[in-house]
Amino acid sequence: MIKKVLKFGGTSVGSIERIQHVANIIKKEHELGHQIIAVVSAMAGQTNELIGKSKAISDEFDKRELDVLLSSGEQVTSALLAGALKKIDVKSKSWLNWQIPILTEGDYNNSRIINMNVEKVNEFLNNNGVAVIPGYQGISKNGDVTTIGRGGSDATAVAVAKIFNADTCEIYTDVDGVFSTDPSKIPLAKKIEKISYDEMLELSSLGAKVMQSSAVQTAMMYNIPLEVRSTFTDRKGTKIFDQQNIDYSKSVTGVAYSKDDAKITLIGVADKPGVAANIFEPLNKAQINVDMVIQNISSDNKTTDVTFTIKRDDLLKTKEILKNNKNVKYKKITYNDKVAKVSIVGAGMVSTPGVTYRMFRGLADHKINILAISTSEIKLSVIIDEENTLNAVKKLHTIFDLD
Amino acid sequence: MIKKVLKFGGTSVGSIERIQHVANIIKKEHELGHQIIAVVSAMAGQTNELIGKSKAISDEFDKRELDVLLSSGEQVTSALLAGALKKIDVKSKSWLNWQIPILTEGDYNNSRIINMNVEKVNEFLNNNGVAVIPGYQGISKNGDVTTIGRGGSDATAVAVAKIFNADTCEIYTDVDGVFSTDPSKIPLAKKIEKISYDEMLELSSLGAKVMQSSAVQTAMMYNIPLEVRSTFTDRKGTKIFDQQNIDYSKSVTGVAYSKDDAKITLIGVADKPGVAANIFEPLNKAQINVDMVIQNISSDNKTTDVTFTIKRDDLLKTKEILKNNKNVKYKKITYNDKVAKVSIVGAGMVSTPGVTYRMFRGLADHKINILAISTSEIKLSVIIDEENTLNAVKKLHTIFDLD
Repeated sequence: MIKKVLKFGGTSVGSIERIQHVANIIKKEHELGHQIIAVVSAMAGQTNELIGKSKAISDEFDKRELDVLLSSGEQVTSALLAGALKKIDVKSKSWLNWQIPILTEGDYNNSRIINMNVEKVNEFLNNNGVAVIPGYQGISKNGDVTTIGRGGSDATAVAVAKIFNADTCEIYTDVDGVFSTDPSKIPLAKKIEKISYDEMLELSSLGAKVMQSSAVQTAMMYNIPLEVRSTFTDRKGTKIFDQQNIDYSKSVTGVAYSKDDAKITLIGVADKPGVAANIFEPLNKAQINVDMVIQNISSDNKTTDVTFTIKRDDLLKTKEILKNNKNVKYKKITYNDKVAKVSIVGAGMVSTPGVTYRMFRGLADHKINILAISTSEIKLSVIIDEENTLNAVKKLHTIFDLD
Repeated sequence: MIKKVLKFGGTSVGSIERIQHVANIIKKEHELGHQIIAVVSAMAGQTNELIGKSKAISDEFDKRELDVLLSSGEQVTSALLAGALKKIDVKSKSWLNWQIPILTEGDYNNSRIINMNVEKVNEFLNNNGVAVIPGYQGISKNGDVTTIGRGGSDATAVAVAKIFNADTCEIYTDVDGVFSTDPSKIPLAKKIEKISYDEMLELSSLGAKVMQSSAVQTAMMYNIPLEVRSTFTDRKGTKIFDQQNIDYSKSVTGVAYSKDDAKITLIGVADKPGVAANIFEPLNKAQINVDMVIQNISSDNKTTDVTFTIKRDDLLKTKEILKNNKNVKYKKITYNDKVAKVSIVGAGMVSTPGVTYRMFRGLADHKINILAISTSEIKLSVIIDEENTLNAVKKLHTIFDLD
């Protein structure tokens, strides 16, 4: 018997009609003889509405009470879905965070799931019941309600799949799957049939926000097969596996990009141990998210240049911090606040010679200047002028046979 | 140190501004050195909205899941109020049904509170904290969420007062207190300063719906002093006590009325044991609420007349049931579907001669015909033509010095 975790996001349960539709999807799977645990988000808009209420009371609303407040959203969906299932004669029951219980540790608003009690739910599944579990929440050791951060229902689904030893975890959402690039901008974008966890992580950290990254990481760690698919069509989605399960006919799986970036270069930084730490520690403390960092080998063995990118909104604050940083000496600072990052991602890249060359040549052929380069095992990113973004993505999509 | 339960109804917490206002009321009481447990309803409209969602799925939405769904309403208010209290520097915490826990027995949607664990909450109160508890809900022995029926937050408040051994239970609502008659119709209606539990029960069962009747009953049983007062003014409300605490200067405390009644008389019913049971058993089975029942002493020792009143909407169904009732023989049936019941209520009535006479005389002087009469220790009700209702109430209000 196959045990499946099916997770339904906020738009998938965004109205009564959609909840009824989700109940029908579950009924079909259940009639195939599978054991089903459904994990649900709050109805679309609900969490923002509750946050709005808390903010109307205080911008720094008490964190403990915020979790009590927000967790009500998924509770409502769980009850409605369980009721909708019973209405169409599927044995079903909602299981709240404290009823299972789902145990967490960490801070309010930002906890991690550490365990669940599987016994009672498994008994219910063995008696042909469908369990409905609210995502995004749990309870702490002290018995307080805790939530696990925005998008946390994905993390709940993967944790449920891991702890209940499910065979697969399907993420139902409002897109058809993971695409080779942004389908809203590049019409030639194609749905990817299979992708590795690493590639998925690179793509989602690059802006393809179909799934929460930390949930993908957990799935990778415990080798839980994922599938991202649409609630609104019958089409197959994108399967996310371990790399070895994927037959790579293409070296590059997708092209991702992020906009609204800014690039800063410190020229003539003293090249000695600890200098990078000295640069980035105060930025980290100010919660400025540094993305790419590039440091060239020092040409004169005395000074080097350090380039890094940040979100454009953080530029002013970053310049301020650098100016006041007494621990770092440099000759000159330059910055460009209209840059974008374009990346090719593919687990097949390592074994395919010439990918790097083809990317650089392709961009050069179209007169797109590369401002910085950064590579990893399965990713190659370049910083370019923002105005060239879509053009670059389109060309790379074609060059790597993704159209 | 005084321990108070303060209960805030749906309109009192109907918006963020009102929740902040309620937090200020609590802060003032807390600063007087009292220990405070606040019991809250769902924000006005919230419960109906959730019921609407459940009905959109099924008219017979699963009862277990309905309780999970509806209980979220008071959870939201509890979190918002606890957060609003912390914002104004009052130590506070919400305590959910399962966190205390509040134990119930009985059916879903219609449970009774049987116990609560007081230890942790008392410790919190002793450490200067204000506890916020969601009304209307609890958990069953099996650990399911249960609710205790519409208006159940009053019952929660009284149960909390009883189990936590509170000194008083204040019901904050959208009216100033209990009035001598309906203030929206009779401008001379006056707020009653003190009233006994019995009188309150008679008045509220007669349509003065300021508090849920079963909550008043529980308060009476355990002698818990109540006060009904307005959230929106500083005025004192109505205190509800044991009779012996009240100094009755007036024989009549209030005049109540109910409209939309119908009166049925069965003429010439065989006067033998069991006949009343035979008449009313099938009505009860059909969930028809019979209000007044009057049976005269039989004049010929063989037959009698039985008169009773019901809600007008039930008239057709009632006639149908009587027609098909083979166990009851009668000569004739008459009915009047445009009647109202007017009652004077007062614990001082027993000890004041002439109240009955003054009521009948007063109505006769104004040419108001009495169709039926029923009396109890503290109440005297008459059935009259509906068109005379307000006139009768006004006259009686004057006759008994209530203006």
